Amino acid sequence: MATEGRRVLVHDPTLRDGQHAVAHQLDAAQLRVYAQAADRAGVPVVEVGHGNGLGASSLQIGRARLDDDTMLATVREELTQARMGVFMAPGWGRGRDLRRAVERGADVVRIAAHCTEVTVTERHLSLARELGVEAQAVLLMSHMAEPGQLAEQCSLAVRFGAQAVGIMDSAGHFLPGDVATRIGAITTAVDVPVIFHGHNNLSLAVANSGAAVTAGATIIDACAAGFGAGAGNTPLEVLVAVLERMEYPTGIDLPAALRAADVAHQHLMTSAPTTDSVSVASGLAGVFSGFKRPVLAAAERAGVDPWDVFAELGRRQAVAGQEDLIPHAVQSVLGAARAAS
Amino acid sequence: MATEGRRVLVHDPTLRDGQHAVAHQLDAAQLRVYAQAADRAGVPVVEVGHGNGLGASSLQIGRARLDDDTMLATVREELTQARMGVFMAPGWGRGRDLRRAVERGADVVRIAAHCTEVTVTERHLSLARELGVEAQAVLLMSHMAEPGQLAEQCSLAVRFGAQAVGIMDSAGHFLPGDVATRIGAITTAVDVPVIFHGHNNLSLAVANSGAAVTAGATIIDACAAGFGAGAGNTPLEVLVAVLERMEYPTGIDLPAALRAADVAHQHLMTSAPTTDSVSVASGLAGVFSGFKRPVLAAAERAGVDPWDVFAELGRRQAVAGQEDLIPHAVQSVLGAARAAS
Repeated sequence: MATEGRRVLVHDPTLRDGQHAVAHQLDAAQLRVYAQAADRAGVPVVEVGHGNGLGASSLQIGRARLDDDTMLATVREELTQARMGVFMAPGWGRGRDLRRAVERGADVVRIAAHCTEVTVTERHLSLARELGVEAQAVLLMSHMAEPGQLAEQCSLAVRFGAQAVGIMDSAGHFLPGDVATRIGAITTAVDVPVIFHGHNNLSLAVANSGAAVTAGATIIDACAAGFGAGAGNTPLEVLVAVLERMEYPTGIDLPAALRAADVAHQHLMTSAPTTDSVSVASGLAGVFSGFKRPVLAAAERAGVDPWDVFAELGRRQAVAGQEDLIPHAVQSVLGAARAAS
Repeated sequence: MATEGRRVLVHDPTLRDGQHAVAHQLDAAQLRVYAQAADRAGVPVVEVGHGNGLGASSLQIGRARLDDDTMLATVREELTQARMGVFMAPGWGRGRDLRRAVERGADVVRIAAHCTEVTVTERHLSLARELGVEAQAVLLMSHMAEPGQLAEQCSLAVRFGAQAVGIMDSAGHFLPGDVATRIGAITTAVDVPVIFHGHNNLSLAVANSGAAVTAGATIIDACAAGFGAGAGNTPLEVLVAVLERMEYPTGIDLPAALRAADVAHQHLMTSAPTTDSVSVASGLAGVFSGFKRPVLAAAERAGVDPWDVFAELGRRQAVAGQEDLIPHAVQSVLGAARAAS
């Protein structure tokens, strides 16, 4: 496969991943105004839903303002050329959620799994194929696995029916070289399009996406103006500009993408994504940035430095849902401080 | 020279380049609180002054809240280990400004020139050497010259007495590969430390700085939390985290650098730097982002797209001070629109 001038498909989860920045509270008018802007810019896939995907709206994770059906029906009405995407993590989402999403017009279905647990995607990937939509598999927190493991997991997903596979840098931990190695291993192992999804904790989301493309990825996720929690996602309009300079066509009109970014700033965000010190600390430690609030609170109570708590959680390989590790991490930091004094 | 593990000196112009974000209005309390935080973090050089450097405070460019003498004397009092830096562009600054700055305790003197006009630095570089301080030369808008030209200009600066030389990506236009080629050419041509100074218009300042280090640069400019106009500068605390991951020691304490970033957010900024659509358009076009306001106004009056005006200004190689090119660029955009319709 020729790598220069290869067309890159920009997959846009603004209306799904961006929900994390606003506690899943986007309303129908917001969905409409952004879907129109993205569709007009020539964005090929517009993903929509609760931040954690189909079926995830709940008291525990956070109730979305709109239910899945309403979100999908609303966005569907605004798309003239773009396909509509949905995201689902088995456990939160179920088969019936997937069926309903396809009935509401979803064209592209993403099934997600922790980076070493791709077997959980098998049933839903094969259901998506049965339903006749495009089935994709993505591995979360992918810095926690070696390139060879990721390639194996992606090969398995292809065997389960995935028509595109790839990795999410959920903690925003990768350097461009890390991404190149991992995407290179995956493109060598599979013969379907490879996906990369970056986060901006170390201010490297655009550079990492460029490195992914150079290494062979052809589907890159990006959100308007980086709309997402904390440091945010790869900013779509910046990615399009950089891919233009790298001479990879995307089919997206840059001035219209810049206008879509303005729409995101004006209509979707309460504040622009910013790489604050917590984003940097969690990205460096490789810890999910959703730990921000409980870590800051626990560190303050104990009188320790929150950056040290993040570093300790990174050493313990904490993943989302393991907030119970925070007090143990605080104890380790206190212990280390006592030992040093 | 061994490249792995080479020590990188982070040069911190937060209190000079950041002034552009606040119309040069930092007061003494702000200078003090940030200088303390940077000094405590082990930042080796703290640069201070009007955004455009020594002698630049004026009605035309913008009056700073404090005069050069007061800024230098204030910061000098707070530094216990860091050296103090000043920036000067010949024309705005003069020999007597440089002498006064050295009397007030400046240790490192930066003389700046447009990327093809390094001869203007000769007199002030040799004055700095006479005064016994470290003399550095930096080339502005460096995307407007080829790698070979930049290397020649840097060699000339070394002949004039510069003890470190390098380039500023004033428009935030470079991709990492562009930086690697240019820094590589310069490090081959000179035997003094090489400087890189990035801007974040294409969200690549950190990646470009990493590429500069890999290519041989040993002095990297970075501002706390990216404090600077528009998309801002390379964020210092992120750079330190990334250099840590790349295994280049900086001597800076990361937790203290994260605290200094929080100080910048809380005490220096009116709003956090953000890569808005204008930053992207000006970065892509290679146009100084100070054109933002007049371009938006002229585009609105003419009913054309501001992104098209930036692209046309880029084709015309507009540099700071050439705002008179804006109406001509607007006419070209209108002409092209008429020809197309």
